Amino acid sequence: MSRATRSSETHGPGMSAGDGGRPPGLVDNALGRRVPTEVNGQPAVPFGGVNGHRPAGRKHAPPIRSCADYPASGDKRVDSLQEAFRRCGLADGMVISSHHHLRDGDRVGVMALEAAADLGVKDLMWFPSASFPCHAGVIDLMEAGVVHHIEGSLNGPLGDYCSRGKMRGLGVLRSHGGRWQAIQDGEVRIDVAIIAAPTADAFGNCDGSHGPSACGSLGFALADSLYAEHVIVVTDNLVPFPCIPWQIQGNHVDYVVEVDSIGDPAKIVSGTTRITRSPERLMIARNVARLLEQAGIMRDGFSFQAGAGGIALAFVHYLAELMREAGVKARFVRGGSTQYLVELLQQGLTDYILDGQTFDLEGVRSIASDPRHVATSPFTSYNFHGKGNFASMVDAVVLGATEVDIHFNANVNTHSDGRLLHGIGGWQNCLASSCAILAVPSFRDRIPVIKDEVTTVTGPGELIDVVATERGIAINPRREDLLEALRGSDLPIRPIEEIQQEVEGMCGGKPREAEVTDTPVAVIKWVDGTVIDTVWQIAEDG
Amino acid sequence: MSRATRSSETHGPGMSAGDGGRPPGLVDNALGRRVPTEVNGQPAVPFGGVNGHRPAGRKHAPPIRSCADYPASGDKRVDSLQEAFRRCGLADGMVISSHHHLRDGDRVGVMALEAAADLGVKDLMWFPSASFPCHAGVIDLMEAGVVHHIEGSLNGPLGDYCSRGKMRGLGVLRSHGGRWQAIQDGEVRIDVAIIAAPTADAFGNCDGSHGPSACGSLGFALADSLYAEHVIVVTDNLVPFPCIPWQIQGNHVDYVVEVDSIGDPAKIVSGTTRITRSPERLMIARNVARLLEQAGIMRDGFSFQAGAGGIALAFVHYLAELMREAGVKARFVRGGSTQYLVELLQQGLTDYILDGQTFDLEGVRSIASDPRHVATSPFTSYNFHGKGNFASMVDAVVLGATEVDIHFNANVNTHSDGRLLHGIGGWQNCLASSCAILAVPSFRDRIPVIKDEVTTVTGPGELIDVVATERGIAINPRREDLLEALRGSDLPIRPIEEIQQEVEGMCGGKPREAEVTDTPVAVIKWVDGTVIDTVWQIAEDG
Repeated sequence: MSRATRSSETHGPGMSAGDGGRPPGLVDNALGRRVPTEVNGQPAVPFGGVNGHRPAGRKHAPPIRSCADYPASGDKRVDSLQEAFRRCGLADGMVISSHHHLRDGDRVGVMALEAAADLGVKDLMWFPSASFPCHAGVIDLMEAGVVHHIEGSLNGPLGDYCSRGKMRGLGVLRSHGGRWQAIQDGEVRIDVAIIAAPTADAFGNCDGSHGPSACGSLGFALADSLYAEHVIVVTDNLVPFPCIPWQIQGNHVDYVVEVDSIGDPAKIVSGTTRITRSPERLMIARNVARLLEQAGIMRDGFSFQAGAGGIALAFVHYLAELMREAGVKARFVRGGSTQYLVELLQQGLTDYILDGQTFDLEGVRSIASDPRHVATSPFTSYNFHGKGNFASMVDAVVLGATEVDIHFNANVNTHSDGRLLHGIGGWQNCLASSCAILAVPSFRDRIPVIKDEVTTVTGPGELIDVVATERGIAINPRREDLLEALRGSDLPIRPIEEIQQEVEGMCGGKPREAEVTDTPVAVIKWVDGTVIDTVWQIAEDG
Repeated sequence: MSRATRSSETHGPGMSAGDGGRPPGLVDNALGRRVPTEVNGQPAVPFGGVNGHRPAGRKHAPPIRSCADYPASGDKRVDSLQEAFRRCGLADGMVISSHHHLRDGDRVGVMALEAAADLGVKDLMWFPSASFPCHAGVIDLMEAGVVHHIEGSLNGPLGDYCSRGKMRGLGVLRSHGGRWQAIQDGEVRIDVAIIAAPTADAFGNCDGSHGPSACGSLGFALADSLYAEHVIVVTDNLVPFPCIPWQIQGNHVDYVVEVDSIGDPAKIVSGTTRITRSPERLMIARNVARLLEQAGIMRDGFSFQAGAGGIALAFVHYLAELMREAGVKARFVRGGSTQYLVELLQQGLTDYILDGQTFDLEGVRSIASDPRHVATSPFTSYNFHGKGNFASMVDAVVLGATEVDIHFNANVNTHSDGRLLHGIGGWQNCLASSCAILAVPSFRDRIPVIKDEVTTVTGPGELIDVVATERGIAINPRREDLLEALRGSDLPIRPIEEIQQEVEGMCGGKPREAEVTDTPVAVIKWVDGTVIDTVWQIAEDG
């Protein structure tokens, strides 16, 4: 839901955790969620409602450097990551950042932290744009004291480790746009940024769209390159200067390290992305596409975004059919790109793909060769502390969630047992779209997805316009315009409470509450840097 | 000459202006040139030799903004420049910047300052990346008190106005790289940046390579967009979002103003650039090309840069012939691009053109359509306060000069009568090349070009490797390696003093000294922000 269509003050309905028994240093935010006022030694601002917080001050400013201190030949290669870290002056307590374009095929994240360990440093903060199961090795480094804690989306084993209260600091989960905001605003100061480059030259120019480990865009590493104190590029595909295109500019880079392999190509991008085969989920996707048509959102020059999940891909497939039938062309579609978006481009159903990350081989081929397939960054697309961004210009976005509640609040981070298992990605940022749609099954493993109150609020209901399930489509009552546009529709539009009750009947009642302690293990930041919710340590014996 | 090949300490030979009678606030810099220690109310650092100055501190940081204060639709249009200025809070004494990609066809620079005048503000500092005769109207605005002074390359009438001591502040001339450095380092803080965009969308994304007023790259406006307090885009070709490519990102832009015309296309780019027809100048060009061949610089994978002047264009023509004959391919050539560079690309004689500005229609067509023709910025190419830049990686550069002296110091700003008539452009920055060649006629209007001492030092002789004239080629004695490589060459290699004497014999002696007062009217900044020389008010009756 676009922020222009609603008030900027929000108070969540009846979600206060109660004033009694509140641990010191916790306050209720504007949604009534208990959040810490200090996170990892820094003051934290509680979420104050959508548009409820205005930043002050100036952007973070990296040091002024001089060409006199860099080789005139442009050759910044050094022999090893250890040597590069040594020259950066790596010391205890520093912040090392990395990016997740290599996804579960990444070899550089752990390699870099292990190289740091070789130098004997302790208590590092690792600041990845996201972590994957391939980064489970960081658990050993945390146990050994090399890494103090992680700020970044924690997927899988690292999320589980955090949930069990094993990490020394609080996890801090930020959206892609929120990570840019935090770096730009100086909330997180990166000492050494590690950039894994599928192609690079010795000057440090980097390109993600070519090379044996090609991953497409490198946008998530851009803020790191602009704002870090030191920048190290790691590549397995060195080309003569100039590396074209330079998604990362060598003028921001201090050192270049060649390695045998930055990642496992098979796990960096999937060969092909696949549409769901579940009849229920296909129905959700088809209904969402029809909703866009019937609400008049699907019109010449419109725009949309959909992720790479099975329902979202099916939605793109069905919407493309409707666009073809109606002779409608989009102005742009937002990636994560897949073969399905590339087909839209090639078939003339959109002028442009604006792509934040590339999910399959067809996406990589397209971004490397088609000038209408344009790499974007979290700055252009998602940063809330800029002069606007692309997300609010998108007419409709189709997203997932682990839970939603009857106030349309949604959770993408924790499961209903309270365990932290997923990152935010661009999910929060995308809610700025004029029509934010959550396309979710009504239950998973016999646990209802629609709850009275979500376990964790990742996004406020105020910004969520539609919850589409296989048992009906709920429209946020705030969106009277949308309800009006869909009056007379043959779509199964129903109040969210009605869908909830039906599913509870099928599943044998409401889902169990998560059994958690009152010890925070992580916080969820909103796009403006405020704390929207807390993740609590799970009760291991619960 | 690459800085890696020489010492960093330099003291100019015998160029002191004398200690007696030195006006207060003037000191001798490392070249012995008298320079002010304060410029327009700010302390100024005297040139301390190549690599003789290290910057401290952090880059300038623009304010943190919030999407909450910009339209969610992305439509930032306002009705007029006056309205945009009003919303920016334009006030007396502020700094308004503009760029010169529209060259002598620009209508936006004067239009913007006149709009500011409409609001009644006074004492503005105008900060263009360069000025042209089309900007002569700014003289009236200076006379009226609207504009206090100009910092930026002053070509033609504005240079003349400054030379006669009419401007209230000192002119400050910076190279393209130096302008980036000054903005980045916070030496010049831009209050309102004006970006004239041949194509833009309502969000503020800008492209220079398409539209009726296409000029190619917009690189000179990039620093302004990144660091200014406020950014206004002015366009005569609004397209639906997204404007692709976005050379300037709308996320940095506050307001967009549509106007009927941003410039006169016939004066923005020349239809075609032309090679000199002078037999003497053709000989210089041919000899420079042969020098590159004979010195072994012209080899597979090499790089070069040449400007758009008649000799430089002829040099490109001859060098291309030699490359074809020898079967040699360049890795990259640096523009200012012209039809001659585009031919190299199309004929497979270079892998890439790295282009800072586009001089003719063929260049514009190429940069708009060929992914091997890459737009660069002063940051990537020239900024000395970065982590290296492209200029020092260029194997040879061919430049002009108004004067050179027997110490290989050179002047591109003033004429021998002391009058300030030219800007620096990228000239100073290009001297970082491994082989910096000045290709100049030995005399102009019967005035010898080689002097005992140049009127104004724009670049120190330490960085100038070759002075090529039609009467011989002088190699800087510091470049023993180059002299060695050219031993046995059939090129007319001679000591610079010998060429000087021959030309003085033909022209009736040494050129007259410039008749100037001891009142500074402008300073020439070196690439690191230090003051390399002073321009003095001319003696009108002299």
